[in-house]
Amino acid sequence: MKVLIAGIDGYLGWPLALHLAARGHEVYGIDNFSRRKNVAEVGSWSAIPIPNMRRRLEVARNLLGLRIKFFHGDLRKYQDALSVLRESKPDAIVHLGEQPSAPYSMIDCKHASFTQENNVSGTLNLLWAMKEFSPNAHLVKLGTMGEYGTPNIEIPEGFFEIEYRGRKDRLPFPRQPGSFYHLSKVHDSANIALACKIWGLMSTDIMQGVVYGTRPNDITDPRLHTRFDFDETFGTVINRFCAQAIIGYPLSPYGKGKQQRGFIALVDSIQCLTIAIENPPKKAGEYRVFNQLDEIYGINELAELVRKAADSLGISVEILSVENPRIEMEEHFYKVEHENLKKLGFRPTRHIEEELEIMLTDLAKFKSRVRARKDAITPRVRWKGGISFPIKARVYDERSALQEQTIRLSSG
Amino acid sequence: MKVLIAGIDGYLGWPLALHLAARGHEVYGIDNFSRRKNVAEVGSWSAIPIPNMRRRLEVARNLLGLRIKFFHGDLRKYQDALSVLRESKPDAIVHLGEQPSAPYSMIDCKHASFTQENNVSGTLNLLWAMKEFSPNAHLVKLGTMGEYGTPNIEIPEGFFEIEYRGRKDRLPFPRQPGSFYHLSKVHDSANIALACKIWGLMSTDIMQGVVYGTRPNDITDPRLHTRFDFDETFGTVINRFCAQAIIGYPLSPYGKGKQQRGFIALVDSIQCLTIAIENPPKKAGEYRVFNQLDEIYGINELAELVRKAADSLGISVEILSVENPRIEMEEHFYKVEHENLKKLGFRPTRHIEEELEIMLTDLAKFKSRVRARKDAITPRVRWKGGISFPIKARVYDERSALQEQTIRLSSG
Repeated sequence: MKVLIAGIDGYLGWPLALHLAARGHEVYGIDNFSRRKNVAEVGSWSAIPIPNMRRRLEVARNLLGLRIKFFHGDLRKYQDALSVLRESKPDAIVHLGEQPSAPYSMIDCKHASFTQENNVSGTLNLLWAMKEFSPNAHLVKLGTMGEYGTPNIEIPEGFFEIEYRGRKDRLPFPRQPGSFYHLSKVHDSANIALACKIWGLMSTDIMQGVVYGTRPNDITDPRLHTRFDFDETFGTVINRFCAQAIIGYPLSPYGKGKQQRGFIALVDSIQCLTIAIENPPKKAGEYRVFNQLDEIYGINELAELVRKAADSLGISVEILSVENPRIEMEEHFYKVEHENLKKLGFRPTRHIEEELEIMLTDLAKFKSRVRARKDAITPRVRWKGGISFPIKARVYDERSALQEQTIRLSSG
Repeated sequence: MKVLIAGIDGYLGWPLALHLAARGHEVYGIDNFSRRKNVAEVGSWSAIPIPNMRRRLEVARNLLGLRIKFFHGDLRKYQDALSVLRESKPDAIVHLGEQPSAPYSMIDCKHASFTQENNVSGTLNLLWAMKEFSPNAHLVKLGTMGEYGTPNIEIPEGFFEIEYRGRKDRLPFPRQPGSFYHLSKVHDSANIALACKIWGLMSTDIMQGVVYGTRPNDITDPRLHTRFDFDETFGTVINRFCAQAIIGYPLSPYGKGKQQRGFIALVDSIQCLTIAIENPPKKAGEYRVFNQLDEIYGINELAELVRKAADSLGISVEILSVENPRIEMEEHFYKVEHENLKKLGFRPTRHIEEELEIMLTDLAKFKSRVRARKDAITPRVRWKGGISFPIKARVYDERSALQEQTIRLSSG
């Protein structure tokens, strides 16, 4: 299969590219490197150093014999979307090329607008370009479980049958997202559903849980590692807790810590995306939704698991809740249906306890890199407003990428 | 009350400004004149000629003693949103400043992106600016009944209580819009709901039916008329049928013509908006939805009503259905709850039959202007794609505005 990955330079994009190429797929990628720039902007970097794309591609070719074709481009430009489809003629397009951080979208108006414009226009351009050049391709779009929010009823996979005032219908499940970022994904989902309906495009919209992990596969060469963010903006909760643990900082659940979310290990996320790609919808116009998660945990429960895992490695850490910078329910009902991927063969391969030990072991090598950006872990972006940290603390450029690479090579 | 109207130059904006000012409110307006430009772009103009804003304001002042303060600005620029709020310090903001045409949003990728970016960023900028400068103002936002689509169950006002798998919740009613324009309004609604929740802003989100009419009030001076679009892109169905009737062209329902929609006369739309403005939500953070319509009609039924009204004025017209350029259900269930505005005192003042006679009488004076742009009535934008008409047929500029004014004065 020919697979185009938008956002190939990201946390999921890069290991997915390697995985698919190793399975014999012809892999193309596009990226504008905005993730690197945006992480630098909030004063952080990847704990696990990553080389730049040129180097990544070289190593994949030389070490593993995998040829991945890369386009440096930006889906916000319709011409770039057209060109990349014309060049790659994909059977599947995996769209991971979005600004993925809720706190980043809440910094100020500029960041909220950037997030929505980047994500919504990028997807819209891709849809129009697909209509033009790849109407039979399958769009695998990364959404988020956060699109649904935390309703007081069970969350089905995208749609539900209901009875209301004596009549029945099958309707999209109402979305109640909690940030301008999560809203951008809701907007995307609605745009994609229409494009499938009117143009006969096919799409799988992935409502993904929170991903955690340092090892997306069994590739051990450090030049092929994927990034690992731990700052409050781009670092997801388990990853952030692990980073706090290895520098001996208290793990910091927000508020009561009784918030519940769905989680999935990085390696299993890659497995699920692969399943979605290799099992496309059967008919034109199909728009399907997969809830992509493994287990549901409460935040305090996770902090406790990380504390224990750290303890077993001889690291002693505290748990110290901080004022919740977000506006969210801190105690709520949470039940999520997630059968679609299982029906297609998804079997979780990692148990969280073992994964946490692997993560802490991996991260221990980069303790100094986490410590060097420790200020970026503390929550500074508040949903109510009143953010006060220097945006553009560091500007990403090729030199800093090279620097990351240098550090990686010396520590790897 | 201080009321800021975004989109004051539009079909609803201008008469609302006159109405509110006459009721003693202090009225401010902002517009970027994009409606005039976009109508010119699709090769049409307002059947009823309208002077430019400078002239409108002059006449309102000299003839009626109404002082309306106008800002030429664009809400897509955050600075413009900030400035206009800082200057006007409004108690209520009526946001009508959006690209309002579904077909326009379906022309191509550029027009779809423009529509979503214009509408979504404009509203987002307004929300952030409100948080900054007017957190106690009441945002009255114009949405559309089209946000809901045509579900097989009754449409409530924004929210519904449901039971699902043994549990209950009150949730936003699922939206199933049928164009990228309608989607932009859905995105807005979701963004506004979040802003109310996290920042305590107050908003009334108006799901408005299709508006029709030439007379928003009893002002007879032609220099104070509002615009009247009749082209396939910006003309709504009843207005388009009336324009077809006066030039003796067959009325053209799309497809089976059994589509049903909610409708409201222009004068009653102004009444409803005024009620919403003068009855703001009672507490910070309140986000309420009003379904703003009077009656539901099927499209064939409307064509028949227009034919009869024309007949009674001695104009004989045929009804000739055309291939549906849209993708929509042509026969469906449609029932809509609309009690909120009635509870606040809304009483429809016009009956459709009498309104149609008024419209046809008013439009008869501008028959030559409709005939001069008759090519713009036929549907050319198809949801499936394959549009072929010269975009930018005419570019709006101040000179053409003056020309419209001249024609108006001679014919008024």
